[in-house]
Amino acid sequence: MLPHETFPLRLARPRTPGVVLPTGQHIDVTHFGEDYDESFFASNGPERLTHWLTAHAHTCPEVSSDERFGPCIKRPSKIVCIGLNYAKHAAETNAPVPAEPIVFFKATTAFCGPNDNVVIPKRSEKTDWEVELAIVIGKKASYVELDDAFDYIAGYALHNDYSERAWQLERGGQWVKGKSADTFAPLGPYLVTKDEVTDPNKLNLWLTINGEPLQNSNTDDMIFNVPTLVSYLSQFMTLLPGDVISTGTPAGVGMGLKPQRFLKPGDVVELGIEGLGQQKQTAVAFT
Amino acid sequence: MLPHETFPLRLARPRTPGVVLPTGQHIDVTHFGEDYDESFFASNGPERLTHWLTAHAHTCPEVSSDERFGPCIKRPSKIVCIGLNYAKHAAETNAPVPAEPIVFFKATTAFCGPNDNVVIPKRSEKTDWEVELAIVIGKKASYVELDDAFDYIAGYALHNDYSERAWQLERGGQWVKGKSADTFAPLGPYLVTKDEVTDPNKLNLWLTINGEPLQNSNTDDMIFNVPTLVSYLSQFMTLLPGDVISTGTPAGVGMGLKPQRFLKPGDVVELGIEGLGQQKQTAVAFT
Repeated sequence: MLPHETFPLRLARPRTPGVVLPTGQHIDVTHFGEDYDESFFASNGPERLTHWLTAHAHTCPEVSSDERFGPCIKRPSKIVCIGLNYAKHAAETNAPVPAEPIVFFKATTAFCGPNDNVVIPKRSEKTDWEVELAIVIGKKASYVELDDAFDYIAGYALHNDYSERAWQLERGGQWVKGKSADTFAPLGPYLVTKDEVTDPNKLNLWLTINGEPLQNSNTDDMIFNVPTLVSYLSQFMTLLPGDVISTGTPAGVGMGLKPQRFLKPGDVVELGIEGLGQQKQTAVAFT
Repeated sequence: MLPHETFPLRLARPRTPGVVLPTGQHIDVTHFGEDYDESFFASNGPERLTHWLTAHAHTCPEVSSDERFGPCIKRPSKIVCIGLNYAKHAAETNAPVPAEPIVFFKATTAFCGPNDNVVIPKRSEKTDWEVELAIVIGKKASYVELDDAFDYIAGYALHNDYSERAWQLERGGQWVKGKSADTFAPLGPYLVTKDEVTDPNKLNLWLTINGEPLQNSNTDDMIFNVPTLVSYLSQFMTLLPGDVISTGTPAGVGMGLKPQRFLKPGDVVELGIEGLGQQKQTAVAFT
């Protein structure tokens, strides 16, 4: 049994809600009786789970790390994404550096586990990758002041904001069309609660395709940082507990390469963020 | 008790799930034991409810029509909207007629009841109206052929796609920013099941501000019709049971008037679609 203060909480979801222990072991916390959804986050779930674990962690069954893991939280009410939030990425896509955050949505049906196959959609020719830091909201946020923004955050997770570039950019406006295919939003392997992340605005992040390094940056290159994004978005819409904000991707996406390069079946995509774990997806054709 | 075949099902949600009878009376169907959500639609809910009503309608308590009504279905996984889908509306916004549907999302937190006040957001100067026909999806839809599209529809409802024009168009791209404020998506008063609507592509729709007629058109003026939209969207994303597709608005929005005109506190917005009932919202300032 670990004392409460030293228990870093990492939420993961194999078949059932689970937790990653500091030892790296995964345990099944089904008996806590809740999934990581809106009502869990709205009711101090992470704190309640931490308390429960001090008494029950030793009774929880271990989960094999070979198990398939789901997204680290349950399907949120929305996945809000930020476009062109790293200056070099804006440059590689020939877009100007934005004066204020560019906001778009991703269908929550795109949500999947961190190591699930990425399915190249039917008729897609330009499926592309984007390693991103995702924020998970901890309480209902509306008109939040910048200084209070961290109070509304539950934690952070790794996200790959897959994008079909032709559908996003060449099919008549509004990016959501190229952002919403099934498997286009792997989230995890785990949510790290905010107290465990010293500074979300200073985390290395990287992505490789078939072992070749293509994205490699740090969140300190973001044009609009974590608290700015939470406060900004909350002026336009109410963010609910469990909602995901994906903060944009650095340079090195396929559409920015010369020549451009997009996923084909068999490609292996690996990515990670300092302290937030890693993902690995294999691209497969839609069948 | 009404015979099954002649029971047109209209789903409404006062405090609790309800049904509007052919007589116009509202009844409370709490004892059916389900709300109108994804799992209800995924499991032939409308058909099961119709059967249940043949035996139980006469035992259901009546609901006063003075009651506050919620949105006619529970919060969906997504609200997908179509832009510039009436040629005259495209013209009034100085936009070209689109070659294929323009797709954007609305935050589901904007969802509200058909007669709730519309809250003009903080710092909004251009809150505008849009009467629209909304489709409610009846079963999971992915890569749906045009000829099969009606099979995936549960029914139809009236929607007012409120829009903050400055946020939508002048704040750095992607319309979702101006579509997602709380109370910007009143849906109802009721969902009409598809079998009760002879032709959704031939329905009058209208909107008045303080009694002055401003929008008045017919869904037969839509550039992309109901089955086309369902089939088209399902190529880019999976539509879930209960998801809402709002099919675009005809000419007569505030930004298209000369001079332009936007909502101010006290304005009364009334709208309707043939066979789908009416809504009435009063604009209030955010407090």
